Amino acid sequence: MAHDHHEPDYKFRGWMGLDESSVDGNMVFQEYEPKPLEESDVDIKVTHCGVCGSDVHTLRSGWGPTLYPCVTGHEIVGIVVRAGSKVEGGLKLGDRVGVGAQSMSCLQPDCEQCSNNMECYCQNAMIPTYNSIYPGGAKSYGGFADYWRGPSHFVVKIPDAIPSDVAAPMLCAGIATFSPLKKYGAGPGKTVGIIGLGGLGHFGIMGAKALECDKVVAISRSSAKKEDALKLGATDFVATADGADWAKTWSNTLDLILCTVSSANLPLTQYLQLLRVNGQFIQLGSPDESLPSFNAFALTAKGAKMGGSSIGSPSEIREMLDFFARKGVRTWNTNLPMQQANKAILDLEAGKARYRYVLVNENHV
Amino acid sequence: MAHDHHEPDYKFRGWMGLDESSVDGNMVFQEYEPKPLEESDVDIKVTHCGVCGSDVHTLRSGWGPTLYPCVTGHEIVGIVVRAGSKVEGGLKLGDRVGVGAQSMSCLQPDCEQCSNNMECYCQNAMIPTYNSIYPGGAKSYGGFADYWRGPSHFVVKIPDAIPSDVAAPMLCAGIATFSPLKKYGAGPGKTVGIIGLGGLGHFGIMGAKALECDKVVAISRSSAKKEDALKLGATDFVATADGADWAKTWSNTLDLILCTVSSANLPLTQYLQLLRVNGQFIQLGSPDESLPSFNAFALTAKGAKMGGSSIGSPSEIREMLDFFARKGVRTWNTNLPMQQANKAILDLEAGKARYRYVLVNENHV
Repeated sequence: MAHDHHEPDYKFRGWMGLDESSVDGNMVFQEYEPKPLEESDVDIKVTHCGVCGSDVHTLRSGWGPTLYPCVTGHEIVGIVVRAGSKVEGGLKLGDRVGVGAQSMSCLQPDCEQCSNNMECYCQNAMIPTYNSIYPGGAKSYGGFADYWRGPSHFVVKIPDAIPSDVAAPMLCAGIATFSPLKKYGAGPGKTVGIIGLGGLGHFGIMGAKALECDKVVAISRSSAKKEDALKLGATDFVATADGADWAKTWSNTLDLILCTVSSANLPLTQYLQLLRVNGQFIQLGSPDESLPSFNAFALTAKGAKMGGSSIGSPSEIREMLDFFARKGVRTWNTNLPMQQANKAILDLEAGKARYRYVLVNENHV
Repeated sequence: MAHDHHEPDYKFRGWMGLDESSVDGNMVFQEYEPKPLEESDVDIKVTHCGVCGSDVHTLRSGWGPTLYPCVTGHEIVGIVVRAGSKVEGGLKLGDRVGVGAQSMSCLQPDCEQCSNNMECYCQNAMIPTYNSIYPGGAKSYGGFADYWRGPSHFVVKIPDAIPSDVAAPMLCAGIATFSPLKKYGAGPGKTVGIIGLGGLGHFGIMGAKALECDKVVAISRSSAKKEDALKLGATDFVATADGADWAKTWSNTLDLILCTVSSANLPLTQYLQLLRVNGQFIQLGSPDESLPSFNAFALTAKGAKMGGSSIGSPSEIREMLDFFARKGVRTWNTNLPMQQANKAILDLEAGKARYRYVLVNENHV
């Protein structure tokens, strides 16, 4: 086991949710026991961590009972301070690296997903970066913390061109939109709609623009974010609350729609109406409740499809980071000291993010 | 205008639905005025017409108010007895031909669908073979009749190897399953599920087998049709009423599912559970009511998709007929004299079809 002798002994301490009330500003900073160190693990000294809607869902047990106490945060950037003898990807002490929303899968050679760069869809063991259990039985803890420990397979190097605070939100919000944009053919000749202008949505617009789509249509409830959407790269803006005619006006115009809204209160039938023939509506947000029902004609009459996408694999994250570095895509982030983790959660829930809060660990920067 | 001088003057007479009660055995045989003859039209002396679930939906105004009086039937085979000077496809008097569920679209060169062999998804004018209005204002009438008149673009020649009664059901039920099987990659290495064992479902099984899928899993409520399913080419049979474990047993096994069930009372969440990663669930039946709602996780956790498909274009129908002729795929049809059109509708609604009724016009055979 290689140690960084410049790094003194350290403890794992972070902002922990102890129960459902933690979402109301009640996370507490305390010590916890990380997973046992394995030769394929790295320890990361956390410098930055983005704040994601998933953190809110998890803190309030929105997706089912949370394994309290938990440390959320899965847009983690920091420095490798410990690396076992079997780490992957040539990671070494001092590397500036990141880890997103997944930190383990079965990684077996006979797993179709793990052996084909689709680890995020591994059906044997998709282990999220927090609120989950590693194969050995230890709990996974996230990045609202001083240190993070986990399997190196899911840790990627950050390109020099991307500052750490800008990189962090790309590791979940960025890849959650970039993966389906690539998979479903966003590019020249295509018209793409992005529903919802939050952390995911702002990456969706920037990604679709960087991929050189003909049109990028931002779809939001109100016009409040119109100016931002156009600055981010949208060619058109639709405010669904501004009038009943939007679905008619934009009917049959979009090849691909990414729906980043994590609420079941969606005008889904009208969104499907916006699709062109053979168009695809891809749901990214996972509301706590079921999606609204719709008539099959919405799909059959146009040979259209409705799909879902979660995050992306480590190789997709690497591809995205290289592409974003080359194209100059930069997160719109608001940095807060990590001591203000509770405030960040409250402000995110209050809809104040423009468009991603990043916690900066001032002990380490 | 070329005429067939061997064919005496003829009148358009057929089994007509006059109101919603027509579905209860009350269609009446009477004369009607067909669309005005255009140079691109053909007249077909109807010898055979399949009976489709759409006929039932339409007769009872299930998909919205029907334009009574109507003549249903859109799996029409017969002989060309009149052909204008501008007919397409080299059709000539005496040809044995068929027409399916669509008989007109915009056919404009700047229509992406019409100019790319996707007429059935034309968003300007998708004109069904009955219960619709042609661009000139005349009503479209179907094939429960002595003669049929309509645009030659949608009329295809029947290969010599396929008898007329066997060919008729292929023109709607056949293509409704063959088109999505081809479009979504059914073939060697793939496992395909077919939900519902009616007219569409029996073609789905035969088509998936003819396309050499690794496995063809027939999914039905009861085991009543198990033996038939295996004879049709299914490798496996799932009866969902036989126990609660089917969704668990078959979880994560199917690349493609065609759902031919035209009812909203579907265990949709469990069906989606059967999909493999990146799998596709394609809804073919269009129930009168909305589909059941489901949680977005059913799609997001596997990058899966739910789509819809309607029928197929004339070029897809030609491809299917050639393929079915080559592979020896034959409809399981039960022939009835066309005089028994009412009985056919009642028996279809009663679930007695094994697996397609074909009305034989004994005046013309």
